[in-house]
Amino acid sequence: MNDRTLDSLTALAVRLADAAAPVALRYFRTPVAVDAKADASPVTIADRECEAAMRAILAAEVPAHGIYGEEHGQERLDASHVWVLDPIDGTRAFITGRPLFGTLIGLWRDGKAAIGIVDCPALGERWIGVAGRPTLRIAAGASQVAKVRPCPAVEQAMLGSCTPYMFSGRDSIAFDKLVRTSRSAIFGGDCYSYAQLASGFMDLVVEGSLKPYDYVALVPMVEGAGGVCTDWQGRPLDLGSDGRVIAAGDRRTHAAAMAILAG
Amino acid sequence: MNDRTLDSLTALAVRLADAAAPVALRYFRTPVAVDAKADASPVTIADRECEAAMRAILAAEVPAHGIYGEEHGQERLDASHVWVLDPIDGTRAFITGRPLFGTLIGLWRDGKAAIGIVDCPALGERWIGVAGRPTLRIAAGASQVAKVRPCPAVEQAMLGSCTPYMFSGRDSIAFDKLVRTSRSAIFGGDCYSYAQLASGFMDLVVEGSLKPYDYVALVPMVEGAGGVCTDWQGRPLDLGSDGRVIAAGDRRTHAAAMAILAG
Repeated sequence: MNDRTLDSLTALAVRLADAAAPVALRYFRTPVAVDAKADASPVTIADRECEAAMRAILAAEVPAHGIYGEEHGQERLDASHVWVLDPIDGTRAFITGRPLFGTLIGLWRDGKAAIGIVDCPALGERWIGVAGRPTLRIAAGASQVAKVRPCPAVEQAMLGSCTPYMFSGRDSIAFDKLVRTSRSAIFGGDCYSYAQLASGFMDLVVEGSLKPYDYVALVPMVEGAGGVCTDWQGRPLDLGSDGRVIAAGDRRTHAAAMAILAG
Repeated sequence: MNDRTLDSLTALAVRLADAAAPVALRYFRTPVAVDAKADASPVTIADRECEAAMRAILAAEVPAHGIYGEEHGQERLDASHVWVLDPIDGTRAFITGRPLFGTLIGLWRDGKAAIGIVDCPALGERWIGVAGRPTLRIAAGASQVAKVRPCPAVEQAMLGSCTPYMFSGRDSIAFDKLVRTSRSAIFGGDCYSYAQLASGFMDLVVEGSLKPYDYVALVPMVEGAGGVCTDWQGRPLDLGSDGRVIAAGDRRTHAAAMAILAG
């Protein structure tokens, strides 16, 4: 993919984020109707409208591209370009008035995560990751390079995870061991934890039961900041990964944490 | 306490929050020195300077009042007025660049929590609770009354808690049962969860191992919004409470949750 194509696709991804943000903010901290999907996760009108706003742009501009969205399903997953969209990652945060939710926009291209945007409209913070380029954090109109920090060992790591309740059975025991080995653990946060890892404020994020729309956008963001984001065996994440995700700012902590998770 | 005295003490509390905020923000998202106290909780220079800024005002203006602070200890706890200060509640949030941390300013007067401010400077949000008055939320220069929402049962409740790792033994089992009974649980948040409960976005917050500076300020804020904030037996919180705190927006959920916690 030449630079010009990548520039143009990145500009399109940014426009998707720009379209999603006002929709999310229009519903944030209002009594949105909260209903229950089959898996009992909270899903709101805001989620669905956000994704619809992004899909409308894609349908108009790149109709041959595929879409893998959380709310409105999958189209043309065999296309060379597939947009992987989570309109509101952190729906629990969203419906409890907590501004840490974000819109995730990933571009899956020829078997790799090429672009990943994490946009947190209620905080006015956006991270733009593009494969092979430095990750940028945009806030208050200013852009800065996001960079992970060194962390040589799990014992020194600030660990983040949405909730220990996302693990069960053997994974739950392994995660518990990781929490107790780490310097400290902070929960909640969803995509914001990965963004803060990319910005050098956290060292390790470990989650399970994630879907492609939860993690595809994270990969270019974390890698472009100098970190690593894989499955629990250290394999690259793809659309068929098992949902176990580990991100680290430092490869030493990544390796040591995987060893603990493997038991 | 007559209204005029209460007004003047509230104005003083607001000035403490105004003094603490710029100190906290000066260090937020900078590489503050993080060291470890005896209990291994992270504590930063920002914590200590924030509290010192508030103590300087109290020493100058109300030298006879007592102070119960997280960082710089206790003075004159037998005074009729004791200021109960947590300079940065949510230190883990603070050191991971997460803007949900807050400064807690409580006034303990003649055996009751008379004033409680939760100030979240990185979000520009402040809650002011005064015994017997409606709680106010101030953001972007605008003030609005904060009000809890009804929630008739734990099964319908959005539950918040800092981390399941704050419980051990029997409490851990009881809390786990509560999580599994509730509609959904969100972790992280610290004081911000109580503030969102006061604003009607959450229904239940349950924590353990808290200190008076973690909860005194919460009581007038939650009560002034129409909620209830007690220990796990439903007793009023005081400086000698056991650190188990339960806040609810609706007394029915409060009672039902306490029954679950009692096993």
